[in-house]
Amino acid sequence: MRIIPLGTSSGKPTLTRNVSGVAVVGEGEWWLLDCGEGTQMQIARARLSFHRLAGIFITHLHGDHFNGLAGLLSTMGLDERERELTLAGPPGIRDYLEAVERLKILYVNYPLDLREVSPTAFADERAEAVEIGSRSLNETGHNTGGSKPVVVYESAKYTVITRPLHHRIFALGYRIEERTRPGRFNVERARALGIPEGPLYGRLQSGADVELADGRIIHPAEVLGPPRPGKAVAYCTDTRPCAGAIELARHVDWLIHEATFTQDLTEEANAYGHSTAAQAAQIAREAGARRLLITHFSPRYSDPTPLLEEARAIFPDTTLSEDLREIEV
Amino acid sequence: MRIIPLGTSSGKPTLTRNVSGVAVVGEGEWWLLDCGEGTQMQIARARLSFHRLAGIFITHLHGDHFNGLAGLLSTMGLDERERELTLAGPPGIRDYLEAVERLKILYVNYPLDLREVSPTAFADERAEAVEIGSRSLNETGHNTGGSKPVVVYESAKYTVITRPLHHRIFALGYRIEERTRPGRFNVERARALGIPEGPLYGRLQSGADVELADGRIIHPAEVLGPPRPGKAVAYCTDTRPCAGAIELARHVDWLIHEATFTQDLTEEANAYGHSTAAQAAQIAREAGARRLLITHFSPRYSDPTPLLEEARAIFPDTTLSEDLREIEV
Repeated sequence: MRIIPLGTSSGKPTLTRNVSGVAVVGEGEWWLLDCGEGTQMQIARARLSFHRLAGIFITHLHGDHFNGLAGLLSTMGLDERERELTLAGPPGIRDYLEAVERLKILYVNYPLDLREVSPTAFADERAEAVEIGSRSLNETGHNTGGSKPVVVYESAKYTVITRPLHHRIFALGYRIEERTRPGRFNVERARALGIPEGPLYGRLQSGADVELADGRIIHPAEVLGPPRPGKAVAYCTDTRPCAGAIELARHVDWLIHEATFTQDLTEEANAYGHSTAAQAAQIAREAGARRLLITHFSPRYSDPTPLLEEARAIFPDTTLSEDLREIEV
Repeated sequence: MRIIPLGTSSGKPTLTRNVSGVAVVGEGEWWLLDCGEGTQMQIARARLSFHRLAGIFITHLHGDHFNGLAGLLSTMGLDERERELTLAGPPGIRDYLEAVERLKILYVNYPLDLREVSPTAFADERAEAVEIGSRSLNETGHNTGGSKPVVVYESAKYTVITRPLHHRIFALGYRIEERTRPGRFNVERARALGIPEGPLYGRLQSGADVELADGRIIHPAEVLGPPRPGKAVAYCTDTRPCAGAIELARHVDWLIHEATFTQDLTEEANAYGHSTAAQAAQIAREAGARRLLITHFSPRYSDPTPLLEEARAIFPDTTLSEDLREIEV
């Protein structure tokens, strides 16, 4: 998997940073997280195939995460897309699409599977801001996994789930995960067991028992290594530090988390429903994430180095996202 | 005045051409014609001041002319714009703004003077496609100026008027015109007449009679050259060749006209409500325009030279627009 940041500025674009959008690229398909204005141009610059875009996942309906949607959907219409597209996000997207369709601004002629995820979809999940630190988290019980995420996308190899975040308006975070793959096939072991090369190898790899000519039954575990866990990427923006983000980021390979401000502006971050770089790093640490990619920088930081330094002091494996600078998961 | 094309592709952006938008820059103020997705980024790249943007004029509500509006308006809100902004275009803009405002996508905290111009605003204007050629135009009577344009903007130095074009949906063309300026002040002549240097010069320049100490009355015509006509720019897209475009382009310094296709695709152009490069050139010639700037090229033309050659064969003073390549009026 690969991560390609398409826009890393918050609120409005700068000359070097577009507004929010991230591509996560898997095998044969990719997904778009948020779709700020200009995202379709960034997709073209990243040389990503519009036809392989399998799902768009919107965090919330602020314009800088959303204004590129009508243009992107219409361009795929002009390009004669045929593949179904999943579009998930908070309630309001349907209203928006209907409004722009009435005005003839939208042109969609391919199957669109729209999934509006409302706050009530999360059972007892309470998306409240929590104090950072495992003690207080345990006290609030928000990180003990009592509530269920909502699955918004499934394919043969991947799943995408969502949980609520904690912004000024209802917002969703996402986790894109490769399914667990069977262990590696051990050819030497298979030969030692006298299994003839050919179709039996494939059946064992796919998890089925096979019977040999001499009547012996071979179980997959005899020739396969341990199951290989899939890669996982979480995307948490816009949000105050919250339990939903920690749940989504649990042991991920990469947590993409907003870091709108430096910690001298912690009060402002809280007032506007955002996180500081330090808070993003604390969430990564709490969640046991392997790596942290910070993004969604306030345009006031023409040089975002202070954001990176602040996060690295708490979580050393932090990377600062730059538009179109690709990351291997 | 200056013209800065911000987007010159039709339908969808390419790697080198954004979707529709043109800046026309006057003294102390400038205007935006159409606002496709990504226009606010192009404005920033052109180093134009958001605070000096006096009016946005939308031709029609297809997404590639319109999808950048919510983002641009909101960015000016974040930038704490105070100056009133005129926003003119066809009916539907108010519905759109209300829809995105309900969804919290829009953030406007400055005075917005919204002027929806409906087809009925043009009295007896019939925006029908006409045959090119003055004979047939005279026969239809469409170029004899029977109907009135609608004024959508006025400032001390400039006026902007609109007329209907002839597209698949209701579309408007615009003409931005500098007001006629008084003639140049002839200092030698003033001295010869014995007018003392100072405030009297200013009063004569502004058009007032003055009385000298010796009782003589001096009229402005005695010291001013002939009135200087203002510059004018017309913008006609999306449209089939039509009388409204000719009226708007009458004797302009620059006609900006769409040239979506080459003439081998004349039927397709007509079916989709567009013009070929040849038709754009014919409109420029009919209107007595001084220069023609063609734009709105179908993405099929990775090299638009054939469009330029086709237009120049009919109207030699044709220029091919390129994103951000500035033109002096």
